[in-house]
Amino acid sequence: MTDASPSACILIIGNEILSGKTQDKNIKFLGEELAKKGISLKEARILVDEKKEIVSAVNECRYKYTYVITTGGIGPTHDDITAECVASAFGKKLVRNEDAVEQLKKNGRELNEARLKMAHVPEGAALIDNPISNAPGFFIENVFVLAGIPSIARAMFASFENKLGSGKQIVSKNMDVYVPEGDLAAPLGDIAKRYPGVEIGSYPFSRDGRYGANLVVRSIDSEIVNTVIEEISNAMQLLEK
Amino acid sequence: MTDASPSACILIIGNEILSGKTQDKNIKFLGEELAKKGISLKEARILVDEKKEIVSAVNECRYKYTYVITTGGIGPTHDDITAECVASAFGKKLVRNEDAVEQLKKNGRELNEARLKMAHVPEGAALIDNPISNAPGFFIENVFVLAGIPSIARAMFASFENKLGSGKQIVSKNMDVYVPEGDLAAPLGDIAKRYPGVEIGSYPFSRDGRYGANLVVRSIDSEIVNTVIEEISNAMQLLEK
Repeated sequence: MTDASPSACILIIGNEILSGKTQDKNIKFLGEELAKKGISLKEARILVDEKKEIVSAVNECRYKYTYVITTGGIGPTHDDITAECVASAFGKKLVRNEDAVEQLKKNGRELNEARLKMAHVPEGAALIDNPISNAPGFFIENVFVLAGIPSIARAMFASFENKLGSGKQIVSKNMDVYVPEGDLAAPLGDIAKRYPGVEIGSYPFSRDGRYGANLVVRSIDSEIVNTVIEEISNAMQLLEK
Repeated sequence: MTDASPSACILIIGNEILSGKTQDKNIKFLGEELAKKGISLKEARILVDEKKEIVSAVNECRYKYTYVITTGGIGPTHDDITAECVASAFGKKLVRNEDAVEQLKKNGRELNEARLKMAHVPEGAALIDNPISNAPGFFIENVFVLAGIPSIARAMFASFENKLGSGKQIVSKNMDVYVPEGDLAAPLGDIAKRYPGVEIGSYPFSRDGRYGANLVVRSIDSEIVNTVIEEISNAMQLLEK
């Protein structure tokens, strides 16, 4: 299956997301960016800052998906354990990376032990540039390790996205219909059955007191997307009145 | 360990979150509400609408955590497969629930096959009230199945939260310090080492050109939280100048 689209999984490392303190913003951004490259984001997990959990998720996901992207936990404080966990998952030592040390020097601050921790990456890992705060991310095999702060995660993604293979771009079209889901389900289901390779989603809304749904059609084949949208549009016209 | 806090995992079912089309809002809300009840949200997963993936995640998580809460995929359309997946995970049949049929009748719309699909729950499941759009959720053993639309997920959570056990409430205090993380890491790490049962998180920020971090202390013991906050405050005063 050489033409199968690459897949990806995101691991968000951060107690602050699970406690409800912080709203995650990285999944939506990365999901959009990966889709643009034809990479299917198949799963995202938000994990506690516990070594056993992180190591086990990294190992499960790096075999299951083409790419694993982690965000969070690569700063200088005691709760930043991502690099150590990824090293353990690969059975590698953490080693000091001299290029990373040079990057960190640019900040002009004393390179104490805590800051030097950010220059330690698993043996064999390569750096991911951080144009914002200089402390680099890294990747090893198919696992890409980014900072958690959304602006830095975005800048790091831009630094390495050319290293990701790309699949056929997923074409997505959507339309709003003012038909309750319970009425559109049967004709929409019939269409979905006739196009098994096409992803058809229905997302209900209530707007100004009227019920409806946003219908989304996704496929790597733009002609089929257009055909399906037209069929849906015709079927809905019979209901929408 | 009868005094251990209950744990929870959230499974968000929805391609629309993974494609980047929609920003998830349920994790933050549920994380906050569970924390108020002393239940630790230990993991959240966002899954594609694929039966195999959902069944396997439900089974993995229902044994691992005290509670599993799912959101999404319980509407009338072909892409709504959560009830079927939860039934499979428990090795149960989907059966028509007459109370659910009565609830659905309240909407005054024709109970066609698609709408009746929303009255089917795994054998042995009990309903979760939906005061907004009437189509109920359900729970079976420790798995609670909610709608994905945030307003409905919240209303459903309010309907069943009294069924969840509660742990000692987690007390959380936090303070902003205008010290770069690389400078506060060593004293903060020392404090964290002396209080191994207390969760101490450091979340860096840059505000008006100044670097700092929000330091969060969480524990079920409010006195220890106060003590740790005071120790951190004293240590930071030496650095903040």
